[in-house]
Amino acid sequence: MPPLSFILHIHQPKSQAYFQIQLLGTWSTTTMDAISSTIHHHNTAAAVHRPVSNMFPKLLALQPLAIHDSHSKPKKSSRSAVESLSHLLHLRMETPEQKLIVQQSNWNLQFDHEEKHNTPAMSPREDVSDKWREIHGSQDWESLLNPLHPWLRREIVKYGEFAQASYDAFDFDSFSEYCGSCRYRENRLFEKLGISKHGYKVSKYIYAMSQMDVPQWLERSRIAETWSKDSNWMGFVAVSGDEESNRIGRRDVVVAWRGTVAPSEWYEDMQRKLEPIGHGEAKVERGFLSIYTSKCEATRYNKSSASEQVMEEVKRLVEIYKGRGEEVSLTITGHSLGGALALLNAYEAANTIPNLPISVISFGAPRVGNIAFRDELHQIGVKTLRVVLKQDVVPRMPGIVFNESLQKFDDFIGTLEWVYTHVGAELRLDAGSSPYLKRGLNLLGFHMLETYLHVVDGFLSTSSTYRSNARRDVALVNKCCDMLVDELRIPPCWYQMENKGLVCNAHGRWVKTRRDPEDIPSPTRDQEVHVHGIEMRESCERFEPLLSV
Amino acid sequence: MPPLSFILHIHQPKSQAYFQIQLLGTWSTTTMDAISSTIHHHNTAAAVHRPVSNMFPKLLALQPLAIHDSHSKPKKSSRSAVESLSHLLHLRMETPEQKLIVQQSNWNLQFDHEEKHNTPAMSPREDVSDKWREIHGSQDWESLLNPLHPWLRREIVKYGEFAQASYDAFDFDSFSEYCGSCRYRENRLFEKLGISKHGYKVSKYIYAMSQMDVPQWLERSRIAETWSKDSNWMGFVAVSGDEESNRIGRRDVVVAWRGTVAPSEWYEDMQRKLEPIGHGEAKVERGFLSIYTSKCEATRYNKSSASEQVMEEVKRLVEIYKGRGEEVSLTITGHSLGGALALLNAYEAANTIPNLPISVISFGAPRVGNIAFRDELHQIGVKTLRVVLKQDVVPRMPGIVFNESLQKFDDFIGTLEWVYTHVGAELRLDAGSSPYLKRGLNLLGFHMLETYLHVVDGFLSTSSTYRSNARRDVALVNKCCDMLVDELRIPPCWYQMENKGLVCNAHGRWVKTRRDPEDIPSPTRDQEVHVHGIEMRESCERFEPLLSV
Repeated sequence: MPPLSFILHIHQPKSQAYFQIQLLGTWSTTTMDAISSTIHHHNTAAAVHRPVSNMFPKLLALQPLAIHDSHSKPKKSSRSAVESLSHLLHLRMETPEQKLIVQQSNWNLQFDHEEKHNTPAMSPREDVSDKWREIHGSQDWESLLNPLHPWLRREIVKYGEFAQASYDAFDFDSFSEYCGSCRYRENRLFEKLGISKHGYKVSKYIYAMSQMDVPQWLERSRIAETWSKDSNWMGFVAVSGDEESNRIGRRDVVVAWRGTVAPSEWYEDMQRKLEPIGHGEAKVERGFLSIYTSKCEATRYNKSSASEQVMEEVKRLVEIYKGRGEEVSLTITGHSLGGALALLNAYEAANTIPNLPISVISFGAPRVGNIAFRDELHQIGVKTLRVVLKQDVVPRMPGIVFNESLQKFDDFIGTLEWVYTHVGAELRLDAGSSPYLKRGLNLLGFHMLETYLHVVDGFLSTSSTYRSNARRDVALVNKCCDMLVDELRIPPCWYQMENKGLVCNAHGRWVKTRRDPEDIPSPTRDQEVHVHGIEMRESCERFEPLLSV
Repeated sequence: MPPLSFILHIHQPKSQAYFQIQLLGTWSTTTMDAISSTIHHHNTAAAVHRPVSNMFPKLLALQPLAIHDSHSKPKKSSRSAVESLSHLLHLRMETPEQKLIVQQSNWNLQFDHEEKHNTPAMSPREDVSDKWREIHGSQDWESLLNPLHPWLRREIVKYGEFAQASYDAFDFDSFSEYCGSCRYRENRLFEKLGISKHGYKVSKYIYAMSQMDVPQWLERSRIAETWSKDSNWMGFVAVSGDEESNRIGRRDVVVAWRGTVAPSEWYEDMQRKLEPIGHGEAKVERGFLSIYTSKCEATRYNKSSASEQVMEEVKRLVEIYKGRGEEVSLTITGHSLGGALALLNAYEAANTIPNLPISVISFGAPRVGNIAFRDELHQIGVKTLRVVLKQDVVPRMPGIVFNESLQKFDDFIGTLEWVYTHVGAELRLDAGSSPYLKRGLNLLGFHMLETYLHVVDGFLSTSSTYRSNARRDVALVNKCCDMLVDELRIPPCWYQMENKGLVCNAHGRWVKTRRDPEDIPSPTRDQEVHVHGIEMRESCERFEPLLSV
């Protein structure tokens, strides 16, 4: 079979930016601010077998056959042909006018006399207890978003860091028998990641599997004997400690859902077909629903589904704290695929637990369901704040292509009822507001959660420049991508283990360290936790002293 | 300009393996055991401007346009088109018959009860003092290579580890102001790399620049204020301590030359034109000679050339130890480009210093000069042992392509006199002898020095299987490539710094650590060393206590 091949044209028209993709001989057009390109797709043998919405994200992984830029001379070297598409786009779109207010040198060098590095990487905490309902979205965040209320900004970053924890602690090592699990046990996750400062405590881990073929979703160990062949760690339930609960005016139960990271993964997160959810007209994307609801008696970690695991724990915690007469809220967060799961989770929670304020704070999440799904969520009182970077393409998916070219693909998407739709309030941000970020197009970089958190941290209003007193550490942006301007001297993709976990033993041999037995996942231990629900009140108490840190 | 594009055909004929490349419409053929492929090169617009020998290695970096495999069905997914060429080749050539004597599991896990990891990663040292001249090559290693004499094997590995040190300590961080330097100062290099066990001590670092355009050779900092804009650390001179000198029967002066690592670099190491060296007919490759001899008064580290630096230090050391009435030898080692520089260095040393036994131990080195160069080296008594893996393509360069298709390119290579030629004795090894290495073709992996050292360590004779009592740590092979069979569970490319050198300071900010001032390169300090030659005897003495470790 001849392979796919692309010719990519990049134009930079005056101000109107547009995006075109030709598939199966048909052009579909959609606007994408700041991006302006024409992607010409040849040889569509493979496309016949695939939904068009699956085709488009493939571009991210494929190498272009040829690059033409109408505004610059063709490069003499053949090198351009071998660069990755995103890297190329990135280079080409770099604008010379890019203004940098960045200090020229010695930025993140450890100079103790530099005040910048002696400032805590966090803004001061304020007591928001009398405003918590508004911050939690009771008024749909009306008049809190532009300008962004500083108290809300702080909460958004907090939830975002919980979602980020689900990436940072994930074991991606395919040579580890624990590949796909969390590297740390529940009670030390936050401490290990340096976010115990938020004053929450993890109460339960959530595992998910998918019975549907959701390609490339599952991280699997290459080793025969592994902790689980079917399941991945998919997030956690946490609850605010006494001190934080006092500050925020209620006991806050948080669910954080892990998303996916690399383009090779997230372009597959998408859309196959919509499937009904609930008892009405609501429909959601089948792949997301499969991850949320799949279970299998033969597995170790998904004898119950992610849905069942999370709902059981949330109900248990809500009962405990309501039983104590406390006010309780549920906040569900997630990035990318995690944001989609957060919505499904909120839908279920709102339909199951009465009189509980439920909010979703999602980052770069794709569309999940149809208009009826959106309307039902609204009706049952789920408040959704979608944080969206205008440079990120994922929130346009599913839909970026086929919303525009509906009539061509109705065998796939059926009728208009199937058009995916976004729900809730949107906090729309522009990565261009940050002087620390490279210009140009970096499809992966603009989707990374750390990039989102950096831009949120500096956002004042759509008419303001980046907040000068933003404190969050800029270096975090480059953990897993290459988004920071060179002047900062932060290496790209720096988040890595020394020697990938190998250590040299006393005999001069490089050996793998075993995981601390404390941190080895155990389905039995987890089961105990929810079997002895009553006892857990005591374990909850035992968490408290740690929360006052 | 239309980009380069390739169509790659992979055949697996019965047993005869061959390798073909079509360039400019002409086929040239060369056999490569274990590899069987036909590379069909289209669209040679770019090739016109480049020597054909430069074109071939480019394949490594380019993505194939299409993959055809006459023996397997075309893949349904387009994924195959996006994999890297080497990865693809690797996958395709994997032979099902591959026999593994590798322990199935728990190989490099830190099990203290496993004897394997309680064995030192080094064979016992024997006193070789009465045989040192033969081991050093006085008889051209006749009858020592097949079977390989265990004493010689040990020496080859020792010198190889010195060459490896020049990679392991090299600062590749383009965000460091010390990019291109050695990460450690002379007196702690071996200790930091765990090779002080060999009982040598570094006496001087060598820096090189190139006034010729040797593309991609120089590693450059992205930062404006850098330790050097022109020079790279290129190796070191070391000398055996008393204990080791007693064991090996003489004071051994070693020069280790750094090579290049990534394919994107080493394919450019090659051949432009030959240039005369010495006073006779000898000619050597101009690029190598340029790195060896370039200097510029305006630079900090190359006011004198690499040649001048190394010769001055070698002469100084030889004088010191001969002045004490000791026997002295010079052993020059290097891998890849480093092996080429080692030959030039040996040529100069033999022409400059009388009555000094000089050997070159090179690993995967390309051809360097013409027949007259080889003959002169022989005449002046330079002994050369070239260690060559038959799977490695670099030792075939320059020459792999244009030796075969000479008549087509005589505008480039001139007359037959210009055909590059290998010198000295060859220790030819087969990576297929090791049960720990993946089969298939991994162009980078088979060129890596660690792969060489692993195969040397297990080599008994061409008719034997891998040495069962080989002790060198197998994990080292995967430092910077993916060559070990999965059963060993050693992650690929594991040699990396924790968080690329960023650390989280007390204020929660990720900052770059400054290099220990001790380890910052200084041209003045280096100068002092060779200006006060006499004083150095005392510093040499001060080295001794460390050598007895």
